[in-house]
Amino acid sequence: MSSVTDAYKKHTKKSAKLFERSKKLHVGGVSHNIRFFEPYPFVTKSARGKYLIDVDDNKYTDYWMGHWSLILGHAAPKVAEKVKKQISSCWMHGTVNENTIEFSEVIQGSVPVAEKIRYVSTGTEATMYATRIARAKTGKKIIAKIDGGWHGYTTDLLKSVNYPFDQPESAGLTDESHIISIPYNNLEKSTSILESVKNDLAGVIIEPVLGGAGCIPATKEYLTGIQEFIHKNNALYILDEIVTGFRFRFGCLYNTMSLDPDIVTLGKIVGGGFPIGVICGKEEMMKIIDTKSNNRQDRSYIGGGTFSANPLTMTSGRAMLKFLKKNSIPVYKKIGRLGENVRNGLSKIFQDKVTVTGMGSLFMPHFLANGITQVTNAEEASRCNIEMLKKYHFELIAKNRIFFLPGKLGAISYVHSESDIKNLLEASKKFTVSIRD
Amino acid sequence: MSSVTDAYKKHTKKSAKLFERSKKLHVGGVSHNIRFFEPYPFVTKSARGKYLIDVDDNKYTDYWMGHWSLILGHAAPKVAEKVKKQISSCWMHGTVNENTIEFSEVIQGSVPVAEKIRYVSTGTEATMYATRIARAKTGKKIIAKIDGGWHGYTTDLLKSVNYPFDQPESAGLTDESHIISIPYNNLEKSTSILESVKNDLAGVIIEPVLGGAGCIPATKEYLTGIQEFIHKNNALYILDEIVTGFRFRFGCLYNTMSLDPDIVTLGKIVGGGFPIGVICGKEEMMKIIDTKSNNRQDRSYIGGGTFSANPLTMTSGRAMLKFLKKNSIPVYKKIGRLGENVRNGLSKIFQDKVTVTGMGSLFMPHFLANGITQVTNAEEASRCNIEMLKKYHFELIAKNRIFFLPGKLGAISYVHSESDIKNLLEASKKFTVSIRD
Repeated sequence: MSSVTDAYKKHTKKSAKLFERSKKLHVGGVSHNIRFFEPYPFVTKSARGKYLIDVDDNKYTDYWMGHWSLILGHAAPKVAEKVKKQISSCWMHGTVNENTIEFSEVIQGSVPVAEKIRYVSTGTEATMYATRIARAKTGKKIIAKIDGGWHGYTTDLLKSVNYPFDQPESAGLTDESHIISIPYNNLEKSTSILESVKNDLAGVIIEPVLGGAGCIPATKEYLTGIQEFIHKNNALYILDEIVTGFRFRFGCLYNTMSLDPDIVTLGKIVGGGFPIGVICGKEEMMKIIDTKSNNRQDRSYIGGGTFSANPLTMTSGRAMLKFLKKNSIPVYKKIGRLGENVRNGLSKIFQDKVTVTGMGSLFMPHFLANGITQVTNAEEASRCNIEMLKKYHFELIAKNRIFFLPGKLGAISYVHSESDIKNLLEASKKFTVSIRD
Repeated sequence: MSSVTDAYKKHTKKSAKLFERSKKLHVGGVSHNIRFFEPYPFVTKSARGKYLIDVDDNKYTDYWMGHWSLILGHAAPKVAEKVKKQISSCWMHGTVNENTIEFSEVIQGSVPVAEKIRYVSTGTEATMYATRIARAKTGKKIIAKIDGGWHGYTTDLLKSVNYPFDQPESAGLTDESHIISIPYNNLEKSTSILESVKNDLAGVIIEPVLGGAGCIPATKEYLTGIQEFIHKNNALYILDEIVTGFRFRFGCLYNTMSLDPDIVTLGKIVGGGFPIGVICGKEEMMKIIDTKSNNRQDRSYIGGGTFSANPLTMTSGRAMLKFLKKNSIPVYKKIGRLGENVRNGLSKIFQDKVTVTGMGSLFMPHFLANGITQVTNAEEASRCNIEMLKKYHFELIAKNRIFFLPGKLGAISYVHSESDIKNLLEASKKFTVSIRD
């Protein structure tokens, strides 16, 4: 056993016992595949501000931040206050409520494509319905996604997520032939692939910063070039801003690049940490989901769901956006600056061993290997030394009480400080030393 | 304008204005297709106990109860208390937590098929993943569902939901050929259809009481007969107990019929009104989702999701099940008795004009038409006079402040009383008079 694992086990004894119980109940002990790491994940007792506190009372400075949802940190007081009040009133009732209307007005005011909005409960649902709208609207069947693009576990987009991208992601899928995949940030290859299916192309879905696949921003040229192709070929442009929406500014990333998507999906930050998925779209696209004015053959039949637009999520989301709107300058300025500091700091520490990707408050170091010298797409990210990244992250957890979900990008929240970044860089320096030994 | 609509409009003026705002933001003004009714749905301000209170301060005795989720009524104090406390601690963090373990132990103790559990955030996700497990486990592709069966908007089960069942439910679907449909409670026809696809049959999914399709219990003979066929042909038996789980007893309905499903999906009640979907299954079936011990081609890659097993839903669900376990005799006895009273009362009032379906605390009157004399499946339910049912429900809303989502089944909660039932029956009598005129 390595001394790092040993150190981890020593301070997570209660977690070890609890995780044994969890394994008897849950496949792999977890409720999300990525939440497991060796030898066992610690069990969280509570979370406040920048900290995760585990059942052994270890306090971790957290850069996972609830799958990158919690831009104000854990249990943000401004959100908690409103949510508690709402709980005294009600938390779900399955009817129209005022909270939804007020929340939507804020979204519509900051995300221009949101001429019409439909709420669902998860990002997976939002992207599933976005693809259904594209197919219904165009009468065509093929959806193109990015190599490595992650849009949740929906059957409609479960292809080319993990490298190598030409292998199936799962048994039990029946219709992968209507999903095709294009290489990120490579306009020439992408358009050539799209060209080959253009007569049956319903839409293209892209994250403007690849999230799960390596924290990689798309170039403006790429996104604009794809858009040009889409508009010429009567398909729909779907931007998945579940990670990027309200992450870099009060609004979406696409607006900073003069893009003109037809549908944008939101989630994570906009829900204030409560379950949410949002489909925002142009009136012309969204009206196809209206069950009153379309007959069955012509409508795109999408959720909804029991919990859609529940007053608690709507309250939480509204409180979050209200705070972000009011404080957009200090919030985005601070987290962006800290992000830049981390990226610069890590680059300096790891030198030519690592390339650091990201933008604004998101960052991810990639340990270079296999001849890779830069990371501009998911293939390059996947061919880096991911085991080393996991080792680095695990060492931060075990020795420094700094938490990244091993192998995943880090997200800075408004509660992080200069000194947190300093600590992270100091700890990273020690890891450099340990890999040199 | 009818006098009933007139009455409704008179007391819902603020709702009318707000709904106009909602229509500018949301397709059809709603976030779930079924939440709209003519002339416009009222806008809920709060909900407490048995009441929905709208923005005009009308107080409706509610039998919709959050898509039938709220078996203890709105804002149940025992749940609210625990949830508020949890909010002070944290509401989501995307790591393993103790609440999940404790909640799962209660489920495992009361739902024997739950040898392993995976949490997701909605029923739609739960049924999507259940079908993926069946297909992965068997290596076969066809999923059979019931005519009228409703399992959420997942692409994998979006077929034969609305009558006539042979028409597509939506544009934009690409693979309906791997979903087939069988008639409820007709074992002979069902097995004959299943027989014709048995070599490619991955599984059958059934609600033991059809929910959205008319509140119709399956016969024990039907469920047992289907099970026999499934076991003989190496397919998976999936029971969707999202509506029925913990609705009639502390546990699932299937246990009362000595059934042996492979997977059971739960939702609604078990989450205490917080977003949840649960996939419960036999170890042998569930282990295929383990990403550690299966390679990509063999695993069934299922969620998860950002919000899966979040500590708030887990706390809410645990508080709900704790209460139900401790009070199972009074709760289920009372709501079952009230349910019987309603069914008997409505049958007596409407005589041969109506047949009332349901069981326990669920009930639904069907206005007979088109030669239908009994309702044992979704086709018979659909051929009844649904417009009359909606008219009846709307009149209850407009004149009596009694709320059913027009056209949908009613659910009695522990907070309903004998006098509520008396009021409902009195109001129904007046409707009888009005249809006689």
